[in-house]
Amino acid sequence: MRKVYMDHSATTATRPEVVEAMLPFFAEQFGNPSSLHQFGQWTKAAIEEARERAANLLGAKPEEIYFTASGTESDNMVIKGVGFKNFDERGHIITSKIEHKAVLESVKFMEKIGFDATYLDVDKYGVVSPDTLREAIRDDTILVSIMMANNEVGTLEPIKELAQVAHEREVPFHTDAVQAFGKLPVNVEELGVDFLASSGHKFYGPKGVGLCYIRKSVRNKFESLLHGGSHEDNKRASTENVPGIIGYAKALELAVEEQQEEAERQWKLANMLYDGLRDHLDGVYLNGHPTDRLPGFLNLSFDKVEGESMLLSLDMQGIALSSGSACTSGSLEASHVLTAMGCDPVLAHGTLRFTLGRENTEEDVEYVLRVLPPIIEKLRSVSML
Amino acid sequence: MRKVYMDHSATTATRPEVVEAMLPFFAEQFGNPSSLHQFGQWTKAAIEEARERAANLLGAKPEEIYFTASGTESDNMVIKGVGFKNFDERGHIITSKIEHKAVLESVKFMEKIGFDATYLDVDKYGVVSPDTLREAIRDDTILVSIMMANNEVGTLEPIKELAQVAHEREVPFHTDAVQAFGKLPVNVEELGVDFLASSGHKFYGPKGVGLCYIRKSVRNKFESLLHGGSHEDNKRASTENVPGIIGYAKALELAVEEQQEEAERQWKLANMLYDGLRDHLDGVYLNGHPTDRLPGFLNLSFDKVEGESMLLSLDMQGIALSSGSACTSGSLEASHVLTAMGCDPVLAHGTLRFTLGRENTEEDVEYVLRVLPPIIEKLRSVSML
Repeated sequence: MRKVYMDHSATTATRPEVVEAMLPFFAEQFGNPSSLHQFGQWTKAAIEEARERAANLLGAKPEEIYFTASGTESDNMVIKGVGFKNFDERGHIITSKIEHKAVLESVKFMEKIGFDATYLDVDKYGVVSPDTLREAIRDDTILVSIMMANNEVGTLEPIKELAQVAHEREVPFHTDAVQAFGKLPVNVEELGVDFLASSGHKFYGPKGVGLCYIRKSVRNKFESLLHGGSHEDNKRASTENVPGIIGYAKALELAVEEQQEEAERQWKLANMLYDGLRDHLDGVYLNGHPTDRLPGFLNLSFDKVEGESMLLSLDMQGIALSSGSACTSGSLEASHVLTAMGCDPVLAHGTLRFTLGRENTEEDVEYVLRVLPPIIEKLRSVSML
Repeated sequence: MRKVYMDHSATTATRPEVVEAMLPFFAEQFGNPSSLHQFGQWTKAAIEEARERAANLLGAKPEEIYFTASGTESDNMVIKGVGFKNFDERGHIITSKIEHKAVLESVKFMEKIGFDATYLDVDKYGVVSPDTLREAIRDDTILVSIMMANNEVGTLEPIKELAQVAHEREVPFHTDAVQAFGKLPVNVEELGVDFLASSGHKFYGPKGVGLCYIRKSVRNKFESLLHGGSHEDNKRASTENVPGIIGYAKALELAVEEQQEEAERQWKLANMLYDGLRDHLDGVYLNGHPTDRLPGFLNLSFDKVEGESMLLSLDMQGIALSSGSACTSGSLEASHVLTAMGCDPVLAHGTLRFTLGRENTEEDVEYVLRVLPPIIEKLRSVSML
């Protein structure tokens, strides 16, 4: 059976070039980068070279790049790190209602231990407005955290403007850029952010490695999340995941190289899919911004049909999609993102997220256009909704 | 030039069988285990199978095994996790003076935010006595954390007895078993511990993956360290490092299989090395317990010579050792472990740690015996000490 994977926002296959780059660092160049002998110094040099490469690709300085184990860890590191640095006075954290759970749950944890938080509203497209942020900043605000691109609907946030608003009040600005990497140009100088989180496996790198950008000027404004040895400039203890770091840098390099071309190609495929579905079906609604969103990204609600039933039927035909975020799949609650955007809760349950990737082709789109409409019609014909 | 790596406590080369087991999970079986479609369910099944295998090898239940990114993360997860669960009343944490920095620095962090801590003394071999622990436990003690085997001197702690003492007062017991895996039999039921930390790269598994054992009965007595999605039974958010987890389980299986045979072989080699050095040199002192210590483990202090000079000279001859823990290398402070054991500070600076591994042979030992004594004699002849 044909297999069509259109769930690239959940994860991607590690590219062969990336695996190849990683391989020597398992059994051959295996030293601990903290060791003073040759075995250690070889891998130390390799990860510092990877750090420099990643820094260059992001417009950062090497000493501003910290490797972590995941995007979630990077988000936790920033939010809790800034929080604990301000532990005695606690303080106020601002985020939005549509963040990834890694941000939302970290902020909720900080609330539990005495911090204050504001969760900003979004408009019907899922956009946080700079004015909304401006009104929310208080004298005791210690951090603003707004994602670069939403993982459920693909909407892009005006990060540059939002960071400026935060900086007007001298509040550091963090962005969860996990979904943006490989899909959008990401330059920390241009964005003006102070912290940024990324995850390797979202752009054809390995799972188990992330990156946290920390601007030099705020380096002393956060406490470590992982305490122990003096790794990562004393800010993130743990023996470095050497193959993972090498793989991350290689994947980033390839992603940046191909980003523009892939973005154009994926926009075209996504439009073809969207237009094709609307040709075949009534009651199809796009969630997220019509233009300011990630390439290859379609979050669609279908009238009178239930998301999980569609997913199961599609899965049996070899088509892999999701109903929202993989990290919260299995949950029966309506998506917190669609809810914040004011989407009708019944309609929200009939949602599919198509996230295209570099291996998807026009044939894949044609296959989905052949398979999905009859599934929806059949489900609608037996639906209680 | 001959290369002799005797720094296995710092890290090990990932075994080819382990890399082979991991490989399919990069590019082929790449799905996100949280995804409901086939791509996700295949990897979900694979990591659950790995969890079950690891659980069986440790005498645990699968639902008591949590995969993390490192031993450091596992230690942080337990200490901070139990701490934050008791955040409102804070409380008292007991550990020892010779723990790994991942434990010590985590406990110090908890002190900074209002917890109390006791750092237990050790005897001249680095052993924590059950009586010392008994005296230190208070009504508000919330956790005891004592390592299974010390990473600098190899001394084994009486974990079973220590855990019993903690349990007499209903205090949960954590052990950092990072150094013990592959070198000693580890069975959580037999040890009676409630929490246990391990790291894959210490026993020929990959870097970037660790394990945290959490006994079912204390599952609700700790707060997550990484907040976000509902991964790892809602206790450790982050997309699972699938290849890492598969590699961890494979490495553990091989390590358990070969443990007894390797232990005997490495004891023999270490004794041959120790005896040979004492035949050639005066002023050689063993740190750590003479018998109750890790196999293949020798921490030796040499009179009138400086550790780093020896390391550099050895490195130029292709011999990789360390002066103590890799995680704190580069530091000029005397080892906190040797200091706690009452070792003379000047002598402590003349220390080498030999940690043998599965690829070391008698020829390696002979090579070290040929190379090291003349280096020491030369250094002594020019020494100011």
